[in-house]
Formats: sequence, structure tokens, C-alpha cells
Amino acid sequence: MASSEISPTKPSILRRRDLASSRLFAIEELELRFANGAERTFERLKGKGSGAVMLVAMPDPDHVLLIREYAAGFDEYALTLPKGLVDPGEDIITAANRELMEECGYGANRIEPLVELSLAPNYMNHRMHVLLASDLYEKRLDGDEPEPLLVESHPIEDITGLLAREDFHEARAIAALYIARDKLRSERESESWW
Amino acid sequence: MASSEISPTKPSILRRRDLASSRLFAIEELELRFANGAERTFERLKGKGSGAVMLVAMPDPDHVLLIREYAAGFDEYALTLPKGLVDPGEDIITAANRELMEECGYGANRIEPLVELSLAPNYMNHRMHVLLASDLYEKRLDGDEPEPLLVESHPIEDITGLLAREDFHEARAIAALYIARDKLRSERESESWW
Repeated sequence: MASSEISPTKPSILRRRDLASSRLFAIEELELRFANGAERTFERLKGKGSGAVMLVAMPDPDHVLLIREYAAGFDEYALTLPKGLVDPGEDIITAANRELMEECGYGANRIEPLVELSLAPNYMNHRMHVLLASDLYEKRLDGDEPEPLLVESHPIEDITGLLAREDFHEARAIAALYIARDKLRSERESESWW
Repeated sequence: MASSEISPTKPSILRRRDLASSRLFAIEELELRFANGAERTFERLKGKGSGAVMLVAMPDPDHVLLIREYAAGFDEYALTLPKGLVDPGEDIITAANRELMEECGYGANRIEPLVELSLAPNYMNHRMHVLLASDLYEKRLDGDEPEPLLVESHPIEDITGLLAREDFHEARAIAALYIARDKLRSERESESWW
């Protein structure tokens, strides 16, 4: 089995071409030559925003806030974590707190970056900053949502229960919840150890 | 806080329009009217394939196979789980075994569906079937890869170690690994219980 020490040589980009562009998306074509001489045509999507944030927001030490919103990709409602696009010039902590106020009616006194997730790195350059929010207080901001979102709180230890629901399937939300749960578990273990 | 019992009424799709299309992607515009009367224009991407599979493939009970491949979205190499598109007419078990042979040089005597993950349900209709593969045997098939992939094996209990690496960030792979790890843990616990 090959070892991780081998650092492959990146393919050369022979040519780059814009195929299509809309308000939200741009499709780009790349002609690539790999180190072994193989040539391939790839397509990739370029996001147009300033990045995005997703929140693991905890109203108490055992629960996490979930939103239920219309998911146009599937034309159905889906359960996920609060999230949104970073506005131009906004830092990710400010964006995260604003989204939490708009989507859930809470602000957070404590927000810390947890992980950065990619969506489909072979095809997209999208990255999502996941942040852990705690010490919440009630505060609502008007957002651009067409209708109020349904907000639920769920025990963060019960990810299995969420996965059993048909409307909970977004990979980034699942990854974010597991990472937050394991972090909280290991903090508790080290506290009880000392 | 609203309860999960409220079942929202889906917006009506007033109009649907194809904005752009390439070999891999299609961008569609939707005019929506929400139950409260609010109207919005949404964009979504439609994938053109027959679905996709991702594998948690275990060469032994404690390790998982990872691949390192060129990720055009970021123009850099990324570490992730073996995965690929389902060919037309192919079932997901056959597709998963074929991708494992092409990308890692192994077939699996046992393959079971683990979970179905969405990518960005607000913007895309993409779903990825994640399968758990075990009882592996050596078998290589030629795929469409422009260069051989680097294959590594990693302890499935050490997801934290993977997350510390700069080249491991794909949300679907992270979600899949946590779900597989928790399933294996709970199977072991119930075995040792009885």
C-alpha cells in the first residue's frame, strides 16, 4: 500500500474556460495534464460568495439547535444546523452570530471555530466554517428567509436518533455534530479525570 | 421553540427555467411562492448521473482505506474515502465493489448500505450512498483515473488524527467515518455485553 509520504506532483492546468454562469454558480472547464502525461478535461463549480458558516449552537450543555427549512434541491423540508453565507467584509464570528439571530432567535456570548469542511472537493471550491456557539441569549434579527424557520432542540448525544429521521441527511451537519459531540465528550472526560 | 410536529406546507413552484447546462452540471431557476405568500427566486444544481457511492472499506476490523487524489475544486490533492459515480443500470452494491477494485485494488465479500448523505440540500439534489465493505480480497480493475491513486490505511478509531491533517476535510467522508465507527463500537459493546 502506498504511504502518505509520497507527495504527488499536481497536474498542470493547460487551459481554463468559463462554461456558464448564473447569479449563484459558475461552471468552469479545466484541461489538465497529469504528471504521468495523461490529459483529462475536468469541470468544476465556483461558488460566488465570501464563504459560509454553520453553527452547532447549544442552548444548554446537552442540547443543540436544529432548523427545519425548505430545501429546494429536493423540493422538500430538511432538518439541519443553522447556516448561511458570510456577507462581504464580515468575519466568520460575526456572520455566525448574525445567522443564529436570524434563523433561531438567539445570540451567543461564546463562539469558537470548530472545523472547516469541504463539500465535494473534486468538483467544487466551497468550504464551510463550522462554529460552536454557547452561552446563548434571546435576540432575533430579521433575515432574508421567506418564512420563519422551525427551530427544535435535540440532545447532542443522540445523533443516531437524528439519523433515523428521513429529513436529516446533510453530510456537513452530520460531520459537525459528531465533531462537536466528541469534543464535548473529551472535555468532560478530562474534567472528571482531574 | 416550535415543535417538530408542525409539518410545513411546501412552497408552490410557479415557474422552472433551465439557466445553463454542461457535461456534468445543470443550473435551474425556480420561482417559488411560500405558504405565507412570500415569493422568491431560487437556483439549484441538478446532477446528471445515476447517483454516487462512497465506501468505508475495512481491510481488517480496525482500519479503513483512504485514497489521496487530485481535487480539481481546490487544485490540490485531498484525502478522502473511495467513491465514484454509479454507472447507468448498475446497482449500488455492484458500483461500490467496482469503485473499490478500481481505486484501491480490492474487492469485498461483504458490502452493506450504511447511510444516504446529501451534499447541500438547499441547492443540489445530489445524494451519496455510503456503504460499509469488509472481508476484502485483492483484485484490481482498470478505472478512468488519469493516474494511480495513493491508498493508505488508517485506524478507524483515530478520526481526530485525520481531522488534524490539512488534506482531510470532505464532510461526507467525515460523516461516513463517524457513522461507521459508532456502528462498529456499538456492535462490539453488544457482543461483549452478551
